[in-house]
Amino acid sequence: MEYRFQPSRYYYMFGPYEPALRLKSGDTVVTTTADAGGSDFRGKPIPPEMLQGSEDTEYYQANPLVGPFFVEDSSIGDTLAVKIESIALNRSTAYSKIMSNFGCLTDEGAGKMLLLNQPLKEVRYDWSLDLKRKTGLIELGGRRIEIPLEPFIGSIGVAPRYGTHQTSLTPGEYGGNMDCPESKEGTTLYLPVFVRGGYLSFGDIHAAQGDGEICGVALETTADVKLRIEIQKGKPIEWPRFEDSDHIMVAGSARPLMDAFKIAHLELTKWLASEYGFNILDAFQILSQVGTCRIGNVVDTNYTVVAKFPKKYLR
Amino acid sequence: MEYRFQPSRYYYMFGPYEPALRLKSGDTVVTTTADAGGSDFRGKPIPPEMLQGSEDTEYYQANPLVGPFFVEDSSIGDTLAVKIESIALNRSTAYSKIMSNFGCLTDEGAGKMLLLNQPLKEVRYDWSLDLKRKTGLIELGGRRIEIPLEPFIGSIGVAPRYGTHQTSLTPGEYGGNMDCPESKEGTTLYLPVFVRGGYLSFGDIHAAQGDGEICGVALETTADVKLRIEIQKGKPIEWPRFEDSDHIMVAGSARPLMDAFKIAHLELTKWLASEYGFNILDAFQILSQVGTCRIGNVVDTNYTVVAKFPKKYLR
Amino acid sequence: MEYRFQPSRYYYMFGPYEPALRLKSGDTVVTTTADAGGSDFRGKPIPPEMLQGSEDTEYYQANPLVGPFFVEDSSIGDTLAVKIESIALNRSTAYSKIMSNFGCLTDEGAGKMLLLNQPLKEVRYDWSLDLKRKTGLIELGGRRIEIPLEPFIGSIGVAPRYGTHQTSLTPGEYGGNMDCPESKEGTTLYLPVFVRGGYLSFGDIHAAQGDGEICGVALETTADVKLRIEIQKGKPIEWPRFEDSDHIMVAGSARPLMDAFKIAHLELTKWLASEYGFNILDAFQILSQVGTCRIGNVVDTNYTVVAKFPKKYLR
Amino acid sequence: MEYRFQPSRYYYMFGPYEPALRLKSGDTVVTTTADAGGSDFRGKPIPPEMLQGSEDTEYYQANPLVGPFFVEDSSIGDTLAVKIESIALNRSTAYSKIMSNFGCLTDEGAGKMLLLNQPLKEVRYDWSLDLKRKTGLIELGGRRIEIPLEPFIGSIGVAPRYGTHQTSLTPGEYGGNMDCPESKEGTTLYLPVFVRGGYLSFGDIHAAQGDGEICGVALETTADVKLRIEIQKGKPIEWPRFEDSDHIMVAGSARPLMDAFKIAHLELTKWLASEYGFNILDAFQILSQVGTCRIGNVVDTNYTVVAKFPKKYLR
Repeated sequence: MEYRFQPSRYYYMFGPYEPALRLKSGDTVVTTTADAGGSDFRGKPIPPEMLQGSEDTEYYQANPLVGPFFVEDSSIGDTLAVKIESIALNRSTAYSKIMSNFGCLTDEGAGKMLLLNQPLKEVRYDWSLDLKRKTGLIELGGRRIEIPLEPFIGSIGVAPRYGTHQTSLTPGEYGGNMDCPESKEGTTLYLPVFVRGGYLSFGDIHAAQGDGEICGVALETTADVKLRIEIQKGKPIEWPRFEDSDHIMVAGSARPLMDAFKIAHLELTKWLASEYGFNILDAFQILSQVGTCRIGNVVDTNYTVVAKFPKKYLR
Repeated sequence: MEYRFQPSRYYYMFGPYEPALRLKSGDTVVTTTADAGGSDFRGKPIPPEMLQGSEDTEYYQANPLVGPFFVEDSSIGDTLAVKIESIALNRSTAYSKIMSNFGCLTDEGAGKMLLLNQPLKEVRYDWSLDLKRKTGLIELGGRRIEIPLEPFIGSIGVAPRYGTHQTSLTPGEYGGNMDCPESKEGTTLYLPVFVRGGYLSFGDIHAAQGDGEICGVALETTADVKLRIEIQKGKPIEWPRFEDSDHIMVAGSARPLMDAFKIAHLELTKWLASEYGFNILDAFQILSQVGTCRIGNVVDTNYTVVAKFPKKYLR
Repeated sequence: MEYRFQPSRYYYMFGPYEPALRLKSGDTVVTTTADAGGSDFRGKPIPPEMLQGSEDTEYYQANPLVGPFFVEDSSIGDTLAVKIESIALNRSTAYSKIMSNFGCLTDEGAGKMLLLNQPLKEVRYDWSLDLKRKTGLIELGGRRIEIPLEPFIGSIGVAPRYGTHQTSLTPGEYGGNMDCPESKEGTTLYLPVFVRGGYLSFGDIHAAQGDGEICGVALETTADVKLRIEIQKGKPIEWPRFEDSDHIMVAGSARPLMDAFKIAHLELTKWLASEYGFNILDAFQILSQVGTCRIGNVVDTNYTVVAKFPKKYLR
Repeated sequence: MEYRFQPSRYYYMFGPYEPALRLKSGDTVVTTTADAGGSDFRGKPIPPEMLQGSEDTEYYQANPLVGPFFVEDSSIGDTLAVKIESIALNRSTAYSKIMSNFGCLTDEGAGKMLLLNQPLKEVRYDWSLDLKRKTGLIELGGRRIEIPLEPFIGSIGVAPRYGTHQTSLTPGEYGGNMDCPESKEGTTLYLPVFVRGGYLSFGDIHAAQGDGEICGVALETTADVKLRIEIQKGKPIEWPRFEDSDHIMVAGSARPLMDAFKIAHLELTKWLASEYGFNILDAFQILSQVGTCRIGNVVDTNYTVVAKFPKKYLR
């Protein structure tokens, strides 16, 4: 069944909150997102009362999420296959920024200076998006720079392990703010069910982004997104897996960066060994010679690395 | 007022759960703990129904916590001063372990191998505690090794920032599983209030531990603990602070280890500058020449470093 | 002038040793390499007396280097532009390996276990190279796997800063064992002159390699290599720069991995600012949106990251 | 035999240079040092012609070293036992500094900003040393701060593995700029012989220093130093070992900090197992409960951690 869902509430957290909608395996949901700064498809701020909050605590005000979507009959140890059917950008603007205390060349802590040096000054960059030609335009350094748009979902995940909650800024085993260009139209994400119902949430559309999202901000915008959800019963996975027409992939998110790298490559090695008939050392060896990898982000509270194996060698 | 509290429920998580007790600024609470493995002062397993859980999720089964204690009139931006009045060990046994996939010389991931190598075999070590002489005894390597007991609280913290939940294995800005020997009798901990009421929880008594808790397990046991709670209104802090008769201290918890080190020393530098009349560079300079530091743990999901400044130079 | 050079001696170190040949700016040298294991184009071991050594010390026996080539009139503060005119594979075999104590999923230390776990068993893999079809073939996991050959120079560098010597296993500011697939035919490398004469050396041809060289060994083989050297007077650079038809690039080599990443991206940001008219924050911003990066290795004594900027945005 | 040695040349590098003196096992050498900034016991700059250099390269101008001392009959695989008989401070002044681009709260790279932020301003601090009362005095933050002097040798090491050279700023397997307060009067250092003759060098006296030398500079001064050298034939070690009346210790130097920590604790575990009758897991276990550790530096090109085991448990 296909649901057209209009969000009435956005969360700043991944967790097992009151579901926005209950889906069944095989269902499709079409919905619209807010941008990372909390504005909608018209560029208007989402009204505060629609943003999650209470008087008892405070929230990190970034990446408001649509959801959570409760998936009926999904249990701990299952996997949610989430096919990204489409990401239709719906706004002719995107913004990016230099932030004073965020980004890989300002400091190591996420949003916190770990330095005595003065913070950078903030700069805002406004991009024009040409949705027909699929390009983004800006003037910088005396140049008119026009880049191809390659939209993807920056933040997508389920309720974290042990039912803990995580801010929408943090990627981890449950997915989350991975900022991976691989979360694009046509890709299927496999996410582990850590809490009964899964509680899928997403948001933070990027119209384009370089590897690592090094300044901490991509071309932030909004889109209409269509996802198809399927439950794979009794198939536990440890970390998010991605699959498109060319690659099987694993996204590891951790600090330090090397741990994210190791997680992604260890899990992909195990995947090759368990499902494709390699012994574990041969799997490691062939990945070593033909694997590629992409750094999603080096700025969030965990960094994200995607390890990729070409499917053409698996036939 | 002094409360004698007998726990009827233990949590595997720091978070704003249903309070065990409501305290006021100035109150004292005396209670008893379970050990990291879930056994009580007689060495008997806590009944499963007293351990937090539900059918919707699973839990990391370590470090059951007493609490949470709601502190009336504490608000976001306040600080809880928690004086550890006493830690009275109440069991003549402690255990430690080599675990197959935990500890700083097995792998880097907390409880997860990031390696293709085979895991270590598990070994359990049973220590006899002489509570009068305050020593722990074991035979190892053909020797009778008797060490002094220096009991401390391994895990103590409030509800994390943004009201998120964290497993009792994780230390952070809210305190948590810091595994710092400085959390001993006589020390006052200052913890930031991130959620109204604070929600203080604690457990995981260590009878003794080396720096870094390198194998991942200390002399795990139980104690009767007496804490006095006071609210410092309108005094926000960023990370846990400790104070005893000799030192002011800050505990930073993060990965990689260097970030924990930087957090602890940056926050202590700021403390010296804001409250003791040094300009920020002079504060950094004098800390550089007389500061000491202690590594709490290098095995948990975040590592913990305590930076220490001698109070004798502050008079 | 073009020199055809037949090595009579191979070094296991980058440093200002007795020059193999003296070149002038504009000269070309054509020579042949030994593979990482010390065998020649026929697969025969290089005679020990041709390998650098003495009775006073020992050497890490990997990556024997051709050179060093002294470049007349090059001084401290100059840059050597080294154009890789051709890499002609000259052997129908390559080997790769699983090593017991090397590679990113065995441990973190280069060639040293930092673990109590048992080392992995060693496995050798023999690849057949079809030099006409430019493919490498192996049978693994019951499959016949044929991969495209994309040969590059694994180790290439000058005498390190301060005239220090470094084993041929270590990459750094001077280049060295970067294991970057970007060091391929058609690329120009820019290397800083740290010692008068530069002392260029190279070797360690890889017929193919995945990102990060995760097992620590690529398709190790030999080639006839043609390089053209040019001096850029009075143009100091801090780290190796690469340029091909599509990208300008910087290779940062350090530990931890995040430092290699930061070095590469900081230097590329500075390059964009100093030569292409961006202010420094705009340079960082545009790199953030269109930059890509590639991990050369995560196994050597320093890790290497290449940051890449598309030249099409610089016109 | 006891040699009184007056240096006529100082090196900025550890390596197998022309020996300053040839010693035999059992000999003692008494000599005087220059401070880290290149001044002598009167505070006068060492004449440039006495500082190592050439027209072919440049040098990092810090930590000039006395030596190298060639130890007759020492071979690869031996160990040099270097007893620090005395460190007699000989100057009534010491300096420390805030540097613009060095220190753990400015950036992660040694002497290199890995940031877009502005560097710190430099500040110099002058300390008065009272050599009789053994105190250092400075006024800071409106206070007269008097601290105890605990002099030690900041830089001491042999020629590095494979005969490579390293700047006097870098610590490693060969010792070097470890900045460990444990290198004090009464301690014996065990250093591996990597090159025939050992080539011991040292310098960089610190009158006092906090853990980690966090600003990058200690109380820099000069001393008359007396060392006794002994060869332990056929006893290879991997990393520097220290021994005083209370502890056996290992100093690990690497980046990231966690690797330095792991090296020190792994080597100390192996030492306990090989010489004191523990099996390897028991050695790890007992170290885990009674070991302490000290961070030498978190600012140099490698960081240094000293793992310590109390000798009282080894009787």
